[in-house]
Amino acid sequence: MEPIDHLISSKWIIPVIPQSAVYEDCAIAVSAGRIVAILPQTEALRKFDPEHHTALPDHVLVPGLINMHGHAAMSLFRGYADDHSLHTWLEHYIWPAEARFVSEEFVSHGTELAIAEMIKAGTTFFSDMYFFPNAAARVAQTSGIRCQLAFPVIDFPSAWARDAEEYLHKGLQLHDDYNDSDRIHVAFGPHAPYTVLDKHLEKIAVYAEELDSCIQIHLHETATEVDDAVRETGKRPIERLRQLNLLSPQTQCVHMTQVNAEDLATLQSCNSHVIHCPKSNLKLASGFCPTAGLLGADINVALGTDSAASNNSLDIFNEMQTAALLGKAVAGNAEAISAHTALEMATINGARALGLEDRIGSLEKGKYADITAVDLSGPGSLSDLSSLPLYNPISQLVYTASAHRVSHVWVNDRLLLDNGELTTLQQREIAEKVRQWQNKIAASEA
Amino acid sequence: MEPIDHLISSKWIIPVIPQSAVYEDCAIAVSAGRIVAILPQTEALRKFDPEHHTALPDHVLVPGLINMHGHAAMSLFRGYADDHSLHTWLEHYIWPAEARFVSEEFVSHGTELAIAEMIKAGTTFFSDMYFFPNAAARVAQTSGIRCQLAFPVIDFPSAWARDAEEYLHKGLQLHDDYNDSDRIHVAFGPHAPYTVLDKHLEKIAVYAEELDSCIQIHLHETATEVDDAVRETGKRPIERLRQLNLLSPQTQCVHMTQVNAEDLATLQSCNSHVIHCPKSNLKLASGFCPTAGLLGADINVALGTDSAASNNSLDIFNEMQTAALLGKAVAGNAEAISAHTALEMATINGARALGLEDRIGSLEKGKYADITAVDLSGPGSLSDLSSLPLYNPISQLVYTASAHRVSHVWVNDRLLLDNGELTTLQQREIAEKVRQWQNKIAASEA
Repeated sequence: MEPIDHLISSKWIIPVIPQSAVYEDCAIAVSAGRIVAILPQTEALRKFDPEHHTALPDHVLVPGLINMHGHAAMSLFRGYADDHSLHTWLEHYIWPAEARFVSEEFVSHGTELAIAEMIKAGTTFFSDMYFFPNAAARVAQTSGIRCQLAFPVIDFPSAWARDAEEYLHKGLQLHDDYNDSDRIHVAFGPHAPYTVLDKHLEKIAVYAEELDSCIQIHLHETATEVDDAVRETGKRPIERLRQLNLLSPQTQCVHMTQVNAEDLATLQSCNSHVIHCPKSNLKLASGFCPTAGLLGADINVALGTDSAASNNSLDIFNEMQTAALLGKAVAGNAEAISAHTALEMATINGARALGLEDRIGSLEKGKYADITAVDLSGPGSLSDLSSLPLYNPISQLVYTASAHRVSHVWVNDRLLLDNGELTTLQQREIAEKVRQWQNKIAASEA
Repeated sequence: MEPIDHLISSKWIIPVIPQSAVYEDCAIAVSAGRIVAILPQTEALRKFDPEHHTALPDHVLVPGLINMHGHAAMSLFRGYADDHSLHTWLEHYIWPAEARFVSEEFVSHGTELAIAEMIKAGTTFFSDMYFFPNAAARVAQTSGIRCQLAFPVIDFPSAWARDAEEYLHKGLQLHDDYNDSDRIHVAFGPHAPYTVLDKHLEKIAVYAEELDSCIQIHLHETATEVDDAVRETGKRPIERLRQLNLLSPQTQCVHMTQVNAEDLATLQSCNSHVIHCPKSNLKLASGFCPTAGLLGADINVALGTDSAASNNSLDIFNEMQTAALLGKAVAGNAEAISAHTALEMATINGARALGLEDRIGSLEKGKYADITAVDLSGPGSLSDLSSLPLYNPISQLVYTASAHRVSHVWVNDRLLLDNGELTTLQQREIAEKVRQWQNKIAASEA
């Protein structure tokens, strides 16, 4: 018998690749943090001698979920200012609050809250774009989660940096600091076409190519953004980015609610990725991303929650549900975005956008053991009647609320969530710190 | 001191009327099943001598939620056939499965599952439209929930009735049986304009007026429905119903994804109600109900989940979230449907559609003690980090997943959910029965 570190057996396994496959009564064999085999349980018990065996008889295993866009620390502003237009929300609430409160400590505590919520909802990788990414990196390191930190570059001063040059300088330092990390990936986060000058975007394009790093940028979030740009420059923002060499297979375009035929052709020819944030787009009335059309044109579309200030949760299961439902309605076709397609958007498509599809995003031999288990037992510790009857576990995961049923989460075979309990973060301490911020921030409103 | 039956004190109370009010550190005094006062806790403890006192220090109380459209027993088909067009879904999956499985026992067990799920998600009133409403009525009676049973009338035979005459006959008998009930309201449920002949619709209009009963009908669910009718009859379906006298302040029009200026004027002049089922409309790609436009024209819009076969849950909190988010995006205005407006749609607007706004739908003196408590404590038995920080409890209820945080539910001051546990229904027995149906139904697929 072959010795291995860990065997996880489960009622169902949804590997994502091959598409729509559901393995019943199988097990995942893991050694040195990697998947070495997926095979029937009976066979696994004959073939392997695992040091640990986790038996999950009523559960489904999926690849750890990948949340491709957010601003983690903004979780401290969850519900702070809802039901306003994007303009009012930013100018009257979020920006003044950020100017007042954002600090290294704010980012540290806010990111901790966000990571705790994300792990509990089955997320094993998140992308972040926020000030003091060094603080976010430290929390991510401790928590055991994987992440992409797209350090911000913006032509506005903040508590973190004075100007675009300083943002870039500090970001490149961060890139160096985590160059050897296999869990923390540093990327470029030019905020948006309308907040970063051409010369800085050009510089980012050069650096990103040199360092082989990803770029994440808010793009075509609203019709106003596109219309304003066309009026002022004669060009749609995506065309301007293309001309500045910013669009490549390493570019992640966040939002893209406005996509005409030329934009589509540009995304295709540049092999750039779209990050779809359906709940944020709905809540801020930004527009509808044509996901079925993009996927039909072989453009990779991954999912993000955006920040808790515009969502108001970091529950990527809920985001999958919204992406599937909305994608159908926008396409006028109930078959347009299936439950499995939504699951791909939250797993392998995220991995592709990161250039990490050889390591994460599906449950396949050779990939990291980044695994999420969901309890579908029916009335049990984490599940309930709303998971019954069960004809198709993929449907149940996507179309019924699943985040609170997440029981176990492993990253690189390290257990980050054990039967619903965080193992690397202290939930009660986080809650206490958050309450202190809440009191401070709420007091400033009055 | 005045003796009362029950005092419920809570951190927050959202009474729905007055609009957007949030009472802090108050209590609800209840006697003989009705609210006798809402007042500060300190005052309540001086003024009243309650037989029972329920203290909920980290919770928010809202009016019991009202789910205005569904087919409860179809919960047994949850996830049975997803990601198909409405046509394929009905003709190839749902109708054949119904023909094979629907019986009095099916309806009894399926409705029990649905009611259990709804109570756990804070629902105190549901509207149902399904075969064997007598079986649904018995389960509703036992469970303690309130309901409207819109008995179906359809020009197709089913296991329950041969033809429209028999549907009507059996429905009128049901109406007589529950004439004295204060919890079970029997209404007319003509299925849809395209499935019921004029002569039967006319008869229903006459009977409903005579009996002072409500009518619920699927109407303008898809563009195809409207286009087909216009081609075949020269009239839009809503205009046909108006001419048949079917539209009145007691008519509940379900779906209405297609609303032109004339339709809007018809709804206004007839004072009929719209029942919005956003998740079902998205999932079946039926279209977008213009809720902000309807509300702006003073048309009452209430919320429904539709059945678990097209949703796939009966979680009215999730439906509120979708209604708020989608309503903003469809209106192109982030202020269009606020969190409180969504809460109104799931409470007082439902009560108005039922003509019961003097008894349910808000927390006000004189109304029934139909009350839902949600635990927003942060890491606790039912809540978690995703409810933190907390600036505005209305936002938190609507924009973050809340169903699993529902701790207590009272109908008429009877406790139906006690700290997350059902008191009138046996969760494990229901699960067992559902598993047996699942095995039968899944086996028939193979």
